[in-house]
Amino acid sequence: MDPLRIAIAGLGTVGAATVRLLHDNAALIQARCGRRLDIVAVSARDPRKDRGVDLSGIAWFEDAAAMAAAPDIDVVVELIGGSAGTAREVCQTALAHGRHVVTANKALLAHHGTELVRLAEQRGLTIGFEAAVAGGIPVIKGLREGLAGNRIAEVHGILNGTCNYILSEMRQTGRSFADVLADAQRLGYAEADPGFDIDGIDAAHKLAILTSVAFGVAIDFESVHVEGIRHISADDIKYAGGLKYRIKLMGIARRGEDGVEQRVHPCMIPEGASMAAVEGVFNAVVAQGDFVDKVAMIGRGAGAGPTASAVSADLVDIARNRQTPAFTVTADRLTQSAPVPIERRFGAYYLRLMVDDRVGVLRGIAGALADAGVSIATFFQDHRAPGEPVPVVMTTHETFEAAMLRGLDAIRSQDFVHDHCMIRIEQF
Amino acid sequence: MDPLRIAIAGLGTVGAATVRLLHDNAALIQARCGRRLDIVAVSARDPRKDRGVDLSGIAWFEDAAAMAAAPDIDVVVELIGGSAGTAREVCQTALAHGRHVVTANKALLAHHGTELVRLAEQRGLTIGFEAAVAGGIPVIKGLREGLAGNRIAEVHGILNGTCNYILSEMRQTGRSFADVLADAQRLGYAEADPGFDIDGIDAAHKLAILTSVAFGVAIDFESVHVEGIRHISADDIKYAGGLKYRIKLMGIARRGEDGVEQRVHPCMIPEGASMAAVEGVFNAVVAQGDFVDKVAMIGRGAGAGPTASAVSADLVDIARNRQTPAFTVTADRLTQSAPVPIERRFGAYYLRLMVDDRVGVLRGIAGALADAGVSIATFFQDHRAPGEPVPVVMTTHETFEAAMLRGLDAIRSQDFVHDHCMIRIEQF
Repeated sequence: MDPLRIAIAGLGTVGAATVRLLHDNAALIQARCGRRLDIVAVSARDPRKDRGVDLSGIAWFEDAAAMAAAPDIDVVVELIGGSAGTAREVCQTALAHGRHVVTANKALLAHHGTELVRLAEQRGLTIGFEAAVAGGIPVIKGLREGLAGNRIAEVHGILNGTCNYILSEMRQTGRSFADVLADAQRLGYAEADPGFDIDGIDAAHKLAILTSVAFGVAIDFESVHVEGIRHISADDIKYAGGLKYRIKLMGIARRGEDGVEQRVHPCMIPEGASMAAVEGVFNAVVAQGDFVDKVAMIGRGAGAGPTASAVSADLVDIARNRQTPAFTVTADRLTQSAPVPIERRFGAYYLRLMVDDRVGVLRGIAGALADAGVSIATFFQDHRAPGEPVPVVMTTHETFEAAMLRGLDAIRSQDFVHDHCMIRIEQF
Repeated sequence: MDPLRIAIAGLGTVGAATVRLLHDNAALIQARCGRRLDIVAVSARDPRKDRGVDLSGIAWFEDAAAMAAAPDIDVVVELIGGSAGTAREVCQTALAHGRHVVTANKALLAHHGTELVRLAEQRGLTIGFEAAVAGGIPVIKGLREGLAGNRIAEVHGILNGTCNYILSEMRQTGRSFADVLADAQRLGYAEADPGFDIDGIDAAHKLAILTSVAFGVAIDFESVHVEGIRHISADDIKYAGGLKYRIKLMGIARRGEDGVEQRVHPCMIPEGASMAAVEGVFNAVVAQGDFVDKVAMIGRGAGAGPTASAVSADLVDIARNRQTPAFTVTADRLTQSAPVPIERRFGAYYLRLMVDDRVGVLRGIAGALADAGVSIATFFQDHRAPGEPVPVVMTTHETFEAAMLRGLDAIRSQDFVHDHCMIRIEQF
């Protein structure tokens, strides 16, 4: 069979690792595919930069979109990133010219995935995006093909390695969020502009993709309820430990009678849960199917090597002409899910309030929650120096979030409250 | 597209669950495949038995091999079990008649897998065996396709739910192997004749298949070093806990310069390792690739629903005409691996000796190990009633197994030793 002719747009660390992988494991991959995987073109901004890989004999393009339109290419690998601009243009151009696309771009898919997949399917082309979710862990393949006989009820996971690293470090060292974030930035685990990661947006992009694959619904990123981890204090981590919980930024998608619930936020999960043991930059995804029950997949959720591994898996699928609808069913069969608002979430809550240490405060808190119909499960008040606000820490029995928010509003309207942190408790 | 016409040989719990899955999720699967998956024939011994599933309109065969040869069938699902006899005949007949095969039969594959795959490939047919390893966890797909760009260095896992259940129960209750086994038999977690599971043979079958898929070598079941869990005592479990280890029956396959090492035996693994948290009837498989690093997959390793889930994933692949060489590369490209004998295993050891409590015993033990070149890492002697043999428990520094066996032989040749238990320590 003829070699598969690959063009790579973007030669950052993932692009360079993909070049290295296809070079180092060329014989192995050829044996697995029955054909060669040849890189015939690359594009990046600076042609002189040393990327530690041999690019001799490979056509160089400064303009990635021009490369996507160039002749004699079978697949375009888009590793530029970003939800619009060049990345989107490259993918559209490639598909319009009859080339398959492989991308690690979760932002692009979360915003324009359905449109791109529709374009691909009209022309019988594949869009591979294993690398867009959970790095090297084959979660897309695992869900879409490995659990193909199941009705999936829920997918949840640890989808952002930066947040998981920060929360793990905070727990292990007792340090503050700001301190650990600064360290993570120095070590390259967090970007100079970290908002994308620590505000939960990256995890929400990935969750929106997983939701579509798991439930056969059109991607609906706008309906994901998103909270990040900036407000998690060293105290919250400590109190969580005392309650036998760990705090993780989780993405959760559930299909219920009312529609599909999608949310990304910090969770307290039991410290014995398998997710709790997933520490540092690792990612994990758990799917629950009606016949298979729960299946968990754990591995490196980012990094050049793992992401290149996922890119290469998609390339091998294309080389072998293994076709699967991108979102499990073809785009014309995707249903629109009714979003379930976060107020309908039912579960337990952790609440830390920083309050004045004076008469009537506990009555004010207890009264507000009782009026809202929220039942307290555990309660304690920590020490502080005289004059400082004291932490009041409680967990609730299961309740609707709407009730919890009513109670919290009533508490916050009282003048003794300085600050608060509410974390949802999930029993995975 | 025409429906995929499926014949199911064997209607035990897995067969019945497969019928139920294809019925309950028919619309979902049709949307995913773009065609219907129709069961057109079944075979089992007793046509009158109530299996809780509706078989009306489905042709009934008493002779499974006759069914495999009957007209108008696309795929034969073999759920009879056993490494020879009817199961083998059904698969051979199906392939000879141009039908794809899906099987959950690890014993058959471990013994005759290469031959069956060769037969299938000659005719352009698929043999799907996701259900043969680790039940519902899509490990075959995960390894073979999800990590297709990687050179795999190692695969290890907890591959037998019965053993894992027994060891978990022993740890949690402090009870003896015999007691827990009897309970497991009552609960249906262990067979009346449990040897297949507890002597490690079932895990070895699965490991031999994983080895072939991971490394592209011909299945070599005979070279798997196999030890079961009969000799693990409640004391060993207790001492392991004291040393911060858990005992798990593991299957381990490693590719080294000398060849491929395949072994199934009880291991002590650090209690913080992710494998240590896999308890009860759950299975887990970890693969290590050169680009992806470690990927772990955890889920239910047996049971009707999970196994039916894996069978259905293979059926969907066939329905979509997604073809992949069974063992990652085609049978003509499989290499023969040089087996690495267990004596070349390098690592630490746990050793419990039951010895007479008298002068010179410790010198005898220490001398034998020193002569063999084995260095002791930890050592303690437990109490017992006067006159009873006392347990001497030690761990060693890393050494070759050949040295360890020399030392153990020299210890056992002395008249003070009544009994012993040696367990390999693995730092996953």
